[in-house]
Amino acid sequence: MITPNLHGIFPPIPTPFHQDEVDYGALVDNITRWMRTGIAGMLVLGSNGEAPFLDQDESQRVVAAAREVTPRDRTLIVGASAESTKGAIAAVQRAAGAGADVVLVRTPSYFKSRMTADVFVRHYTAVADASPVPVLPYNVPSFTGVVLPPAAVARLSRHPNIVGVKDSSGDLTQIGDLVALTPPGFNVLVGSAPTLYASLCVGAVGGIVAAACVVPDLCVRLYELARANRHAEALALQQQLTPIAKSVTSTYGVAGLKAALDLAGYRGGLPRAPLEGASPEAIDTMRGQLHALQALA
Amino acid sequence: MITPNLHGIFPPIPTPFHQDEVDYGALVDNITRWMRTGIAGMLVLGSNGEAPFLDQDESQRVVAAAREVTPRDRTLIVGASAESTKGAIAAVQRAAGAGADVVLVRTPSYFKSRMTADVFVRHYTAVADASPVPVLPYNVPSFTGVVLPPAAVARLSRHPNIVGVKDSSGDLTQIGDLVALTPPGFNVLVGSAPTLYASLCVGAVGGIVAAACVVPDLCVRLYELARANRHAEALALQQQLTPIAKSVTSTYGVAGLKAALDLAGYRGGLPRAPLEGASPEAIDTMRGQLHALQALA
Amino acid sequence: MITPNLHGIFPPIPTPFHQDEVDYGALVDNITRWMRTGIAGMLVLGSNGEAPFLDQDESQRVVAAAREVTPRDRTLIVGASAESTKGAIAAVQRAAGAGADVVLVRTPSYFKSRMTADVFVRHYTAVADASPVPVLPYNVPSFTGVVLPPAAVARLSRHPNIVGVKDSSGDLTQIGDLVALTPPGFNVLVGSAPTLYASLCVGAVGGIVAAACVVPDLCVRLYELARANRHAEALALQQQLTPIAKSVTSTYGVAGLKAALDLAGYRGGLPRAPLEGASPEAIDTMRGQLHALQALA
Amino acid sequence: MITPNLHGIFPPIPTPFHQDEVDYGALVDNITRWMRTGIAGMLVLGSNGEAPFLDQDESQRVVAAAREVTPRDRTLIVGASAESTKGAIAAVQRAAGAGADVVLVRTPSYFKSRMTADVFVRHYTAVADASPVPVLPYNVPSFTGVVLPPAAVARLSRHPNIVGVKDSSGDLTQIGDLVALTPPGFNVLVGSAPTLYASLCVGAVGGIVAAACVVPDLCVRLYELARANRHAEALALQQQLTPIAKSVTSTYGVAGLKAALDLAGYRGGLPRAPLEGASPEAIDTMRGQLHALQALA
Repeated sequence: MITPNLHGIFPPIPTPFHQDEVDYGALVDNITRWMRTGIAGMLVLGSNGEAPFLDQDESQRVVAAAREVTPRDRTLIVGASAESTKGAIAAVQRAAGAGADVVLVRTPSYFKSRMTADVFVRHYTAVADASPVPVLPYNVPSFTGVVLPPAAVARLSRHPNIVGVKDSSGDLTQIGDLVALTPPGFNVLVGSAPTLYASLCVGAVGGIVAAACVVPDLCVRLYELARANRHAEALALQQQLTPIAKSVTSTYGVAGLKAALDLAGYRGGLPRAPLEGASPEAIDTMRGQLHALQALA
Repeated sequence: MITPNLHGIFPPIPTPFHQDEVDYGALVDNITRWMRTGIAGMLVLGSNGEAPFLDQDESQRVVAAAREVTPRDRTLIVGASAESTKGAIAAVQRAAGAGADVVLVRTPSYFKSRMTADVFVRHYTAVADASPVPVLPYNVPSFTGVVLPPAAVARLSRHPNIVGVKDSSGDLTQIGDLVALTPPGFNVLVGSAPTLYASLCVGAVGGIVAAACVVPDLCVRLYELARANRHAEALALQQQLTPIAKSVTSTYGVAGLKAALDLAGYRGGLPRAPLEGASPEAIDTMRGQLHALQALA
Repeated sequence: MITPNLHGIFPPIPTPFHQDEVDYGALVDNITRWMRTGIAGMLVLGSNGEAPFLDQDESQRVVAAAREVTPRDRTLIVGASAESTKGAIAAVQRAAGAGADVVLVRTPSYFKSRMTADVFVRHYTAVADASPVPVLPYNVPSFTGVVLPPAAVARLSRHPNIVGVKDSSGDLTQIGDLVALTPPGFNVLVGSAPTLYASLCVGAVGGIVAAACVVPDLCVRLYELARANRHAEALALQQQLTPIAKSVTSTYGVAGLKAALDLAGYRGGLPRAPLEGASPEAIDTMRGQLHALQALA
Repeated sequence: MITPNLHGIFPPIPTPFHQDEVDYGALVDNITRWMRTGIAGMLVLGSNGEAPFLDQDESQRVVAAAREVTPRDRTLIVGASAESTKGAIAAVQRAAGAGADVVLVRTPSYFKSRMTADVFVRHYTAVADASPVPVLPYNVPSFTGVVLPPAAVARLSRHPNIVGVKDSSGDLTQIGDLVALTPPGFNVLVGSAPTLYASLCVGAVGGIVAAACVVPDLCVRLYELARANRHAEALALQQQLTPIAKSVTSTYGVAGLKAALDLAGYRGGLPRAPLEGASPEAIDTMRGQLHALQALA
């Protein structure tokens, strides 16, 4: 089996809603537009896809819709997670059945104090054993409250069906450890755009970053500059990207990301309740940030 | 509509498994035995019921089985939660349909930084508006990483279908605030057995505490001593209960609770993966604790 | 050696400043007034005394001034802490020399990750061996970022010169453990007024709480009601005290405490820089709270 | 006034003790040896210098001894901190008087919840106004529990006597923000060796890192490789350095650093109580790490 390409930039795309129902038309419109950019693929049903808000049927239809408009030379990563190992296995099998090239499996986290390195290794090993497609463990402490330790990922990197990891900690010591402790060819992807350039410096092969939904080609250019050893230019571009990158994540969240998409000419809309839409002040701030990047629609 | 009784002790019962499948027979056996004690009712599908590990169908069958063997004079509280408001409404309606007297609705928590007091008020108001049975919001920061502020509960306490709150923070300032800021008749229930007596002192009307699964009648006795103003005896009993109360929660978790049930003559068994069973050392410790309470089977 | 009395209420008194210099006259005026209330003694050079802002000479003069106006039947507790064991020994010896009846020794905390139970036990044992007066270890995680575990206090409680502990965690499980794990006669004092009543219920013998600076006699009355098993009245009084108790600690800090003292007819003034004075809104809020308690000057 | 050079590598040197007293001879021996390496200067009385354990007199003598053996072309940075603004001003004046080229001033942190951006700006402005030598604010959340926000540093960077900042958060978003929000020529120094290379990539001008005490020339080489745009080699060297860099900080602390110095032929010895010496296992681990770097004495 050939591992799908995981080098480059992958937007973690939002799920558009219309009157609280998934708007599949808007989803397809957005993807079609993203496919005209230099992204290497995309992630559906991640945190920014409001995956915890979708039921099983909605999730399946989102994946199927995305698959239909995603060319085979772009990698379709699908979020497929559950608190129980049994549930996670079912989720990855559903995702693969609906067309995922790779599945992204978030750490279980409800019973936080029990989530030891050994527990994670057993969980991911069972999931990877049962998954029809390659698996990426996903570490996102800001949402889960737990940390997937690099030493656990090092053990998991020996599994033939675990081909990389997504780490959204923004912790460069952790990113550096993931690179240092795993074999060449294991794909370390980062999930934090403000540290995208620094992460590429220490050996990450790409990024799954919300900013790439809004300004995909700028993120792709940052990736290419870093690869070309054009560090001064890459750093300058990182500094330009950081303000909007923060706005669509830590500062304004998914609602901010969706509002920024509206400003950039994509179909954003509102998140599902209980999340609230972005405030007028947030929208104004992001309008200014996108204007500075010449990224307003 | 008469509010079901929420005064007293309510065990948050585990879900027994046999070879990773729900063991409904064991569930019924346990409930039957608990119903011979002085408990005021029980909670199914709470954290100790491994609710995050059950699928929708399993959840429904657990509630139905519990309903069948729970007499009408004991209150059947059912955990019914989801990250989205839409999902939580569906969950409380399913729970009510399956026989819940009251539903316990955990705070949404995935998008932690967005979970403001206003967001919680809107979420719970919508859920309570749509719920056929009374609603208890549920604050459990050790699992969710978010805190439901007493000021939000104060606002929610004016909703006719929100009849109390369960707070498992173990924070007595918070418990005291919940009592002080809500009207008489609003039921503040605590979820932390090591602080059960202190919580009753400051005005809680009962407890939904894991220790009550293992030693229900001792918990009931503590409740009655506190109500009878027999404080010295209540404190002495609290001190006796605290060691096993910690073992089955913070120290050994759900696996510990299940092992303690086995020791006490109930049907405990193993939790679902990725949780691991209790270690031999944990079991030995709890055997000693239960022996001291004369609670071994 | 007879242990000084540690039962009852002890205000942790602020250090007044005039133009950033210690105002010893104001200090003496305040103490003189407190001595007309039912307090059992007081703490000088605690956190509320801005001890970390005073140099060695100022500290000595504050203790000496307090000693002069404190009758022998009230216990003078003096904060005496340092990061090194050597420094803490010097500090307790200076405090004893200046007239302390008891010293309160805060946990070292700079090298947080090294502060294990064993390290604390060794530190306090060395300090207690060298101290001319009895020692109270002091646990205050909100300022130090470390926790003194009850198991360490249990070991320390066997030292003849360690006569109790002050715990400001506000964590009732911790307070309960301190009482349960130490011998009768060991004095557990709490440092959080919003949990004063609950702490007395579980066996604390008194409180060193900021609210007692502002409304000493109400705090003394709460203590006496709890001791007299008049629990309903005690709880009602706790609920009345809680708002001002929070204002002078977590909400507005030392600056709030000093402003509240001004409102109550004591000499409060401003804290030392970099702390800022209380805002007009804070003062208004506290004026209302003290009015409700009939405690305005 | 010419700003002393702050580009390059600066070891934060430990204070050696002999039988719990400062060993000035060992201090001078070590410095003499460090001065034969390519370091740009050094820091005395930092966290690794156990500054919180030294009294005023010891501190002065340490600075004076260091000054005597530090050539004028190496920058002598001296830690000079206090909780009060008044105390910090006195500390920087003493340090300057004893020969400091630059002072490093840790954030006040005892009253954590009061330490707002405004408070920090006022504190550092007053300190810089009064300091005879240039000032570096110092952000070290793992010891202080507070964060100095980049926005506050941006405001402070306009003060002519505040010439840079030391940030030990290890947070690359924060490092990147410090660089982006301050003017060219403002010196951002990092305090976390595992992220040294990543920090240099995003614009830091140097590092004050414990690893530089043990393997100064390897740290200097990493700095030079990064400056020369030889990124692949720099990353490889970072990966080699990271294990010992962690050992002498987060894993084994100051005791570990001192033990590593003994292994590398410097005079390390034991930290002051209550800190404990490194365990035999820790020493074995570090012996292996230093052997791999050919850095054993």
